[in-house]
Amino acid sequence: MDVGFIGMGRMGRGMAARLAEQGHSVRAWNRSPEAARGLPGVTAVASAAEAFRGDAVITMLADDAALEAVLVQGGLLDGAGRPGVHLGMSTISVALAERLTAIHGRAGIPYVSAPVFGRPDVAEAGKLNIVAAGPDAAIDGAAPLLDAMGAKTWRYGEEPKRANAVKLAGNFMLIAAIEAMGEACAFTEGHGVTGAEFLDLMTNTIFASPVYKNYGAAIAARRYEPPGFGLRLGAKDVRLALQAGEAAGVPMPFASVLRDGLIEAMSHGDGEKDLSALAEVARRRGGRR
Amino acid sequence: MDVGFIGMGRMGRGMAARLAEQGHSVRAWNRSPEAARGLPGVTAVASAAEAFRGDAVITMLADDAALEAVLVQGGLLDGAGRPGVHLGMSTISVALAERLTAIHGRAGIPYVSAPVFGRPDVAEAGKLNIVAAGPDAAIDGAAPLLDAMGAKTWRYGEEPKRANAVKLAGNFMLIAAIEAMGEACAFTEGHGVTGAEFLDLMTNTIFASPVYKNYGAAIAARRYEPPGFGLRLGAKDVRLALQAGEAAGVPMPFASVLRDGLIEAMSHGDGEKDLSALAEVARRRGGRR
Amino acid sequence: MDVGFIGMGRMGRGMAARLAEQGHSVRAWNRSPEAARGLPGVTAVASAAEAFRGDAVITMLADDAALEAVLVQGGLLDGAGRPGVHLGMSTISVALAERLTAIHGRAGIPYVSAPVFGRPDVAEAGKLNIVAAGPDAAIDGAAPLLDAMGAKTWRYGEEPKRANAVKLAGNFMLIAAIEAMGEACAFTEGHGVTGAEFLDLMTNTIFASPVYKNYGAAIAARRYEPPGFGLRLGAKDVRLALQAGEAAGVPMPFASVLRDGLIEAMSHGDGEKDLSALAEVARRRGGRR
Amino acid sequence: MDVGFIGMGRMGRGMAARLAEQGHSVRAWNRSPEAARGLPGVTAVASAAEAFRGDAVITMLADDAALEAVLVQGGLLDGAGRPGVHLGMSTISVALAERLTAIHGRAGIPYVSAPVFGRPDVAEAGKLNIVAAGPDAAIDGAAPLLDAMGAKTWRYGEEPKRANAVKLAGNFMLIAAIEAMGEACAFTEGHGVTGAEFLDLMTNTIFASPVYKNYGAAIAARRYEPPGFGLRLGAKDVRLALQAGEAAGVPMPFASVLRDGLIEAMSHGDGEKDLSALAEVARRRGGRR
Repeated sequence: MDVGFIGMGRMGRGMAARLAEQGHSVRAWNRSPEAARGLPGVTAVASAAEAFRGDAVITMLADDAALEAVLVQGGLLDGAGRPGVHLGMSTISVALAERLTAIHGRAGIPYVSAPVFGRPDVAEAGKLNIVAAGPDAAIDGAAPLLDAMGAKTWRYGEEPKRANAVKLAGNFMLIAAIEAMGEACAFTEGHGVTGAEFLDLMTNTIFASPVYKNYGAAIAARRYEPPGFGLRLGAKDVRLALQAGEAAGVPMPFASVLRDGLIEAMSHGDGEKDLSALAEVARRRGGRR
Repeated sequence: MDVGFIGMGRMGRGMAARLAEQGHSVRAWNRSPEAARGLPGVTAVASAAEAFRGDAVITMLADDAALEAVLVQGGLLDGAGRPGVHLGMSTISVALAERLTAIHGRAGIPYVSAPVFGRPDVAEAGKLNIVAAGPDAAIDGAAPLLDAMGAKTWRYGEEPKRANAVKLAGNFMLIAAIEAMGEACAFTEGHGVTGAEFLDLMTNTIFASPVYKNYGAAIAARRYEPPGFGLRLGAKDVRLALQAGEAAGVPMPFASVLRDGLIEAMSHGDGEKDLSALAEVARRRGGRR
Repeated sequence: MDVGFIGMGRMGRGMAARLAEQGHSVRAWNRSPEAARGLPGVTAVASAAEAFRGDAVITMLADDAALEAVLVQGGLLDGAGRPGVHLGMSTISVALAERLTAIHGRAGIPYVSAPVFGRPDVAEAGKLNIVAAGPDAAIDGAAPLLDAMGAKTWRYGEEPKRANAVKLAGNFMLIAAIEAMGEACAFTEGHGVTGAEFLDLMTNTIFASPVYKNYGAAIAARRYEPPGFGLRLGAKDVRLALQAGEAAGVPMPFASVLRDGLIEAMSHGDGEKDLSALAEVARRRGGRR
Repeated sequence: MDVGFIGMGRMGRGMAARLAEQGHSVRAWNRSPEAARGLPGVTAVASAAEAFRGDAVITMLADDAALEAVLVQGGLLDGAGRPGVHLGMSTISVALAERLTAIHGRAGIPYVSAPVFGRPDVAEAGKLNIVAAGPDAAIDGAAPLLDAMGAKTWRYGEEPKRANAVKLAGNFMLIAAIEAMGEACAFTEGHGVTGAEFLDLMTNTIFASPVYKNYGAAIAARRYEPPGFGLRLGAKDVRLALQAGEAAGVPMPFASVLRDGLIEAMSHGDGEKDLSALAEVARRRGGRR
């Protein structure tokens, strides 16, 4: 398929490279243009408008503001580009997903929310878990792209925001797992068992899953750089979850604790480290260094 | 080996049956005697004192009070019984483990804390994860028993209380996982995605581990009876974790949220249900039934 | 002085009436015009622009959105009106206060943030506590107005947003007092002492202050209608405090608890009741009706 | 009246001195005897048993353990002493109050729980607020003593534990007020307003009450030594409130936050400072020193 790709951060590059490798024709655009270059089979284009056309366009940007800047302020939806479908794969707010759904409806462009679970190396390998919601026909039509990028596409019906809610709920659970490990390690450490010793047991038995293994390894080693999933980005996702929870009338006390902990981590200089650095907050509160 | 077994609840019966099956000679005692009967190869004895002798004695009781009643008030340690080792496998407080270590030291009986992870069916299959701490020689000597009951024995040094700290930290993480799923499901439900639909994705991908799969299935089905791990027992474990955390100077905000949620669950009549019923608290707070 | 008054809700009406009573000439505007009528000495004008001129203009609106709608989208700052000073007395976000400061700077109109503590009856009596920050000369010039409306003007320097931070911190403390009373009453009630019996002691001794007496009386009587300070409005203020706390890198665990409790209250139908209805959340969680 | 006084800490000394001054005959005992000496009109006695007789005996000890050590382990209730009434004025657990009620019932000695609000200087001035519950006749009979020590006796019926529940609820509210001030000050400070500037407004207007004024002054000055009400003692009271809340099925999220904060304060070396040092936790979490 002929696909435009907007947003060539680490995730976007991995996904675009994979699409090209699987035989799709990719036109890529990024705000800082160098990030769009150097991938075999991926053509860097000079404007977002040049990317916003063809069989499909994929957006993969850092946050609501970045997506709105390109799409809404940038006027793409009022332009000449008529992509066959817009796959919004960024982790954005439920509220923005609702707004985008309305705007695309008026513009007559099918919109599918399709955020993903998986880190950049998983993206390169085409093994993402893709969470998709939007018009069935649009998702069906985009299947060659989704199949190229993902191990599986999980479908959540025709209302795009549902996919975003699922993504935010998943990231909330992920960050909650980090906090739980952080508190548990500070606790065992206070009784003479290092976090590494404790997590060796947990992450190889009843918690043997990718989230616990990956983040647990960082916590056990107390190594938080370079960041895989940046702490500041995680704080944004918790904020989005809290806002969407409030919109749905759902209090989330764990998410509130995460919010407070992440702010504390940032105030102590860990905003640019890996999300797993949240585990240091529990240690510090307990008087350890 | 010739082993006494004190405490024939659901876990204890599974473990004793497995020991007998693996060729050990088991003398079993339980406060209500019928529970000690009817297992092939397991001899019911009439008093705790008759169990408290031989190569080893294993205790597997519900809580601190039950263990203290039998062991301390019951005067076992002052009696004639001189078991080769006492394997304390109950989930008890760190403080009681310290006290038992001191008392056994004075009585000249080796004491090993050896709590376990795994449900009754896992105990029957001899696939428990056993967390052991105590004198090396004592643990080595008990290896035939530990190997019969467990898939693996995880050793945490010579100070018994460490094993108890590890067990409490693990149960804390388990209950935190339930709370995280509960909040996340209430959240997605508020945006049109059922808990079952959401957890299908999570527990088969980045959270694919026994804890999430087992408790997630109960939460997805909203089926909390019969209890596997009773909610009231879970509340006790959180209490023990908070106390031991305080003793170590470690604040645990997630554990505090769990405590509040579990009290709320009990006040709404769910104390005798499965621990996974904690997930209903988030739904109720959000105004759902 | 010749003063324009924008926003004639219950607080605004009380303040405008007081200004007129003290001899000031008041031009009042409200989105729904009937609210601007019927006050002796207050002239209803047909547009916000007619109010936005003279010696001073006062805005007293419900929230950020309402203020921005009138002031920014409404184009007042680009219009011909050149009021001598703009006293922003609404409870708005710190971020909006910063934005308004910049915009007024460009427009050459002095801007003073001057939110207040006190209910409508206190406003009518001219006994508000006014929290003012902005250019010294501007505050000095507005003194006749501030003195008419307030028992005292508390000055916090030349940076307007400081006054808003103080106001939000004060409202946070107020709502925290309600939560503390709510939990305490649910607690004593669980031990046979009614909230009314308990609060009689507290609010007449070590907590004998207006906040505890006023809200305590409502909690003691469990009478939450009609609302003095609406719960939904209080939830907004907590949200603003959390946002401004995050901007300053300050975690606020009490505010997080308040947020969760207020969402729960709204999900149970209490959004339009008085803020003191937050106290019912603790009772309900404890299984009481 | 002829009264024995057990426990001559700072509060006890103030109360005993006041009783003597008002014409009562006081026999005082303290574990470290020097504390019982040197008060005009107060006779130091050599054993608790010598104090435990006469028209009335008052106990004013640090905690449950201290009271149980003297009263239960010390065997006072099995001794020859038959005081006309026992006024238990210590801040103890609801559970211990229930136990004491039962024990005294069997011993045939009237027991009244009568904890107090007020610091040592208030005790010396005879201006305490006394919270009394127990047999009406016993309280009536002790009126001359209660009137000497207190500004007012607040009566909560015949079940002694109710007075203890009220006392714990009051202390919970007091510590919650400190936390609220602490978070609010960290918040305003992050926006350029010192805690002192902020609290000057609050504690002189809508929060003008003894609790806010006293603790607010310490927080504003960031002066936490010497302690009036020690932080470690406050942590104990929160623990008692949480336990009694759990017994009554009442979750108390604010109390949970206080618990976590107080543990953090102790882990950072502030256990022996004044309770108001809890306010430093919020500052530290926000990255300030």
